[in-house]
Amino acid sequence: MISQKWSKLIRGLHQKKQRKIEQCFIVEGEKAVLELLASNWQITALFATERFLQQHASAVTELTLVQSCSADELAKVGTFSSNDAALAVVAMPEAQAFSLAEPAWILVLDQINDPGNLGSIIRIADWYGIKHIVCSTDTADMYNPKVIAAAKGSFLRVNLYYQDLAPVLAQQLQPVYGAYLGGESVHSLTLKQPGGFIVMGNEANGISAELSPLITKKITIPAYGAAESLNVGIATAIICDNLCRLSVG
Amino acid sequence: MISQKWSKLIRGLHQKKQRKIEQCFIVEGEKAVLELLASNWQITALFATERFLQQHASAVTELTLVQSCSADELAKVGTFSSNDAALAVVAMPEAQAFSLAEPAWILVLDQINDPGNLGSIIRIADWYGIKHIVCSTDTADMYNPKVIAAAKGSFLRVNLYYQDLAPVLAQQLQPVYGAYLGGESVHSLTLKQPGGFIVMGNEANGISAELSPLITKKITIPAYGAAESLNVGIATAIICDNLCRLSVG
Repeated sequence: MISQKWSKLIRGLHQKKQRKIEQCFIVEGEKAVLELLASNWQITALFATERFLQQHASAVTELTLVQSCSADELAKVGTFSSNDAALAVVAMPEAQAFSLAEPAWILVLDQINDPGNLGSIIRIADWYGIKHIVCSTDTADMYNPKVIAAAKGSFLRVNLYYQDLAPVLAQQLQPVYGAYLGGESVHSLTLKQPGGFIVMGNEANGISAELSPLITKKITIPAYGAAESLNVGIATAIICDNLCRLSVG
Repeated sequence: MISQKWSKLIRGLHQKKQRKIEQCFIVEGEKAVLELLASNWQITALFATERFLQQHASAVTELTLVQSCSADELAKVGTFSSNDAALAVVAMPEAQAFSLAEPAWILVLDQINDPGNLGSIIRIADWYGIKHIVCSTDTADMYNPKVIAAAKGSFLRVNLYYQDLAPVLAQQLQPVYGAYLGGESVHSLTLKQPGGFIVMGNEANGISAELSPLITKKITIPAYGAAESLNVGIATAIICDNLCRLSVG
């Protein structure tokens, strides 16, 4: 059973305001909770079905608060329409300011509003071995349950920073690539050095005018058909794929 | 105002069963409806706000049934949480069987369940100039409002066919590429000829065992990080980008 007190707390964590007060967020579903248990993130409480607890007994022994409950209860307090596995309440790690020790590919998100897009981008970064994502302060909150769900465990391996983007880009010696319509094709690009910032703009408005002068190379995904645009998650994936291909090749 | 009769009919079209009976589906929102009005698809009825009708008067004159209504009414009968523009009831074009006249890139979807993924794949196909998508009969319905919304007007330019996939692939002289983990990297691939089938498998289970012997080339998106997998829409985009790059280059 999940107590009244915990139910209220967990439901509160659907909202950013309450997450900020509690400094906690929720992770739901079998795969994500298993990846979480294998990580060194600090789990405050775990609510799980008997089946999950029996199957993964060795993974959960070290936790202080573990509570068995029904799949119905998990669905009621969480955001998934069904969840026959587990829900964890997790302590937010302390926010860090971004700093770059050595050349690397860094994603920079300029007001990405949709939590599904942000989650998808975190998963893509993890696929391409990109460890850092710098987000404008008005980008969707990485601890939103929809972001966590779409990121599929990848939020455990990718560092996100929320801060003003202009000072970050202005200080850098690395190239700053920006995704535009009408830039240089990512298919014909050559790199002088591997690594750089990849700036992706807002879903409707693209990269903001403030950041535009800081972009050192405008890049574009060539179109062969008639669609006007690509979703920002899709565009991020294609750009990362091309830049990683060029870095290695 | 939207009459009781139309409200009931439109709400029914959220369900596949009712779409099949009525042979109609709905298109919602400003951009998609405008692209629809510019196409030669047959619109049965258009419900739109006064503002939309005034702004786009020349686009709507040829329609028989045009009804002005409020944004609230549009949201109530449709699937969008808000819609201050328009909703169209559209006649389904007659279903066709797939046939290939000349070499081309063709997407083949083996049980793609999620409507958002299907819509996203239609939009990607349109970006890369892929005109045909052959879907297994258990793939999500292309007329599902979530598919139409995610496809962003691209459903007007890409032909979808629902049929058994094995006979389609067995008859073809074109190469059949299949997305697998552990195939040849799309970064090092060379093409003997441009064009071929690109088979994308189910979100959880990949390409079905039945189709596996018909794949002539297993291909893979190289991973540089730790994520276990990519979303099928993202994977489709990256594969299309690489194959189009190789076709032209």
